[in-house]
Amino acid sequence: MTNPINQLIDTYISAWNEPEPDRRRALVGEAFTTEATYLDPMMSGAGADAIAAMIGAAQQQLPGHRFVLAGAPDAHHGRVRFTWHLEPAEGGAVVAVGHDFGTVSADGRLRTVVGFLEQPEAPAAA
Amino acid sequence: MTNPINQLIDTYISAWNEPEPDRRRALVGEAFTTEATYLDPMMSGAGADAIAAMIGAAQQQLPGHRFVLAGAPDAHHGRVRFTWHLEPAEGGAVVAVGHDFGTVSADGRLRTVVGFLEQPEAPAAA
Repeated sequence: MTNPINQLIDTYISAWNEPEPDRRRALVGEAFTTEATYLDPMMSGAGADAIAAMIGAAQQQLPGHRFVLAGAPDAHHGRVRFTWHLEPAEGGAVVAVGHDFGTVSADGRLRTVVGFLEQPEAPAAA
Repeated sequence: MTNPINQLIDTYISAWNEPEPDRRRALVGEAFTTEATYLDPMMSGAGADAIAAMIGAAQQQLPGHRFVLAGAPDAHHGRVRFTWHLEPAEGGAVVAVGHDFGTVSADGRLRTVVGFLEQPEAPAAA
């Protein structure tokens, strides 16, 4: 259970959920290299400082919500992909689904993350 | 229906399904830049020639199967992701699922593709 990729992505998700700026910046520093980049359809950040600030700004747009990892990350050759859900912190239906693709540096931190967003799937018909 | 990203990924899937080497190489040249790279857990290719040869080798491991795009590609900022199924050409259950992430060059062709493989999902419980 100490798979380094799983730990890395857990830290990444924790950074997205951390409301306290200094603690969030520390988590971003654990998850990302100093020069890392993040890019999704709605926002981007270049460098760990910018990514930490970007996450803080995103949190202000999403009060009362949290990011939850959906399933285990899949990784090979220093590449990783994983899916997350955005859901009300109090519980309830998933409001957004993200598919993130990352590259991992030799030191085990994320060097790039590209995110894709989609609407939650409707419940499957029987 | 002439979305350039959808056309690009259709061409990419066609390349994977094309058994005739010259035609496959032409499709790879439409889908990939000359210096493009491909990497998944089991194989890799650097350059369009190598990618075309790699696909030919993969086809020999998968006789009687075809790749089918699952859903529409999702793209932003020159990045694209999509899912494909490997299934018997005669029809039948999906035998593998792939999640591909690509970067698209300014000329509209794939510059990098990283693929992830998974087992097909079991049918959802009612």
